[in-house]
Amino acid sequence: MFNSVTIVGVGLISGSLSLALKEKGLVKNVIGVSRTEASIKKAKELGLIDESLPLAEAVRKSDLIYVAIPVDVTIPIMRQIMDLVQENQIVADAGSTKAALCDALADHPMRRRFVATHPMWGTEYSGPEAAVKGAFVGRSCVICEKEKSDKDALEKMENLYKCLGMHLVYMDAHNHDIHAAYVSHISHITSFALANTVLEKEKEEDAIFELAGGGFESTVRLAKSSPAMWGPIFMQNKENVLDVLNEHISQLRKFKSCLEKENYEYLQQLMENANKISRILK
Amino acid sequence: MFNSVTIVGVGLISGSLSLALKEKGLVKNVIGVSRTEASIKKAKELGLIDESLPLAEAVRKSDLIYVAIPVDVTIPIMRQIMDLVQENQIVADAGSTKAALCDALADHPMRRRFVATHPMWGTEYSGPEAAVKGAFVGRSCVICEKEKSDKDALEKMENLYKCLGMHLVYMDAHNHDIHAAYVSHISHITSFALANTVLEKEKEEDAIFELAGGGFESTVRLAKSSPAMWGPIFMQNKENVLDVLNEHISQLRKFKSCLEKENYEYLQQLMENANKISRILK
Repeated sequence: MFNSVTIVGVGLISGSLSLALKEKGLVKNVIGVSRTEASIKKAKELGLIDESLPLAEAVRKSDLIYVAIPVDVTIPIMRQIMDLVQENQIVADAGSTKAALCDALADHPMRRRFVATHPMWGTEYSGPEAAVKGAFVGRSCVICEKEKSDKDALEKMENLYKCLGMHLVYMDAHNHDIHAAYVSHISHITSFALANTVLEKEKEEDAIFELAGGGFESTVRLAKSSPAMWGPIFMQNKENVLDVLNEHISQLRKFKSCLEKENYEYLQQLMENANKISRILK
Repeated sequence: MFNSVTIVGVGLISGSLSLALKEKGLVKNVIGVSRTEASIKKAKELGLIDESLPLAEAVRKSDLIYVAIPVDVTIPIMRQIMDLVQENQIVADAGSTKAALCDALADHPMRRRFVATHPMWGTEYSGPEAAVKGAFVGRSCVICEKEKSDKDALEKMENLYKCLGMHLVYMDAHNHDIHAAYVSHISHITSFALANTVLEKEKEEDAIFELAGGGFESTVRLAKSSPAMWGPIFMQNKENVLDVLNEHISQLRKFKSCLEKENYEYLQQLMENANKISRILK
């Protein structure tokens, strides 16, 4: 399907994408672009990339340029790429925020060669060694502003994600950012904050962690996530994240009030309402 | 090891215990006691119990009486059992709070036949159909006030949990309740509250849930837990749970303040600190 794909950033997402493309026979050659020499070396060792090149040269040689780096550096790098890109090439990104990037590229003369995507898959790990086979399968991939992309570019990206086993969802960039705040960004903040809550306690008492079981591990595992990746996401999606965070704090306060007032009935109601989440998780 | 074990309550914990004891050949006969006829029927179908009897009769026939019911009803039922129990019998419980029960039984003339335990394993599901094989393996089991149990009773319970693959931890009941608030109870409250946060949003917008990925599922899965089980735990461990909940809300407020003030540096520090949780989770 592609002769040559450049991945900008060689980490969890781009590395897993490369493995999937190679496994499905969808690409002949993968070029890695990264400022970090150690990442390039590791990515080669792991078979994530076939070669590494400076950005401009990599872009010139590629059918698809796929950008998966922290969202704050995505915009300047993407501008450079879009200035280099030709009619027959496709540019796509995997960023967790979409409005700022789409707005930044809105008036670029090559905008129609860009497809704004967000594959909703990830783990709490980062870097090339975090790349895994079989990623993306069964998850949703959001495509934003599809009407602003050329039909051939859009179709190629749709087919790529479908081949990876993803389910496509279309929405505008603004709505994407609201929804991502609710189903992804807030989970990371609660996990980070829960880890800090418990680590605060650890200062007093070490033995506590002997007890940490599956429930704790499940709610706190996202706290291992990369600050370099998540800081820019929270900042770029600040308004939406603050909305959800305020709602979440107010929901926690309801539990607090139930306990303080020994309002057992309302406590039961709160938990019964929360049980409705089963509808959504399968 | 045991001729006959009575499980009081036939659900997730007692059912999984029964399956494990049977698999290891540690029990000949398991008697179920439950007020719910449907649970008894289901437990028999699933092979969790061999027969069901009224409480007094079941106690009389058993070497071990194992109580795993919501913590608010544990105390009155446990008093009944302790009044019936003989020198050669052992009573144990699996409750998620330990101080209230240990205090309630402190002066009972048969106290030394009781072993206060909390196997730190569970899932978000409940009832006999939630029982699974291979539960408990690799997890911690807390034993409280071991000095108040007869040596033979303590040893038999220690061996039972070790045979199930558990790691034993000893602490007093008060410390158990503090630690359980940090590594288990707070995770459930944050999950319940996060589910309510997102369900609140769902009223406005249905499509949001198409996006729910692995991170969301992980942080919110405990919200499926049983209110009948968790309400009494939160209430009985109110003081400790409120301490942790206040700390957690204050940790969330730090994230909120970073976003509001665009204090990127402090945001990074908060996340980097949270990353230290890797030490604890493996």
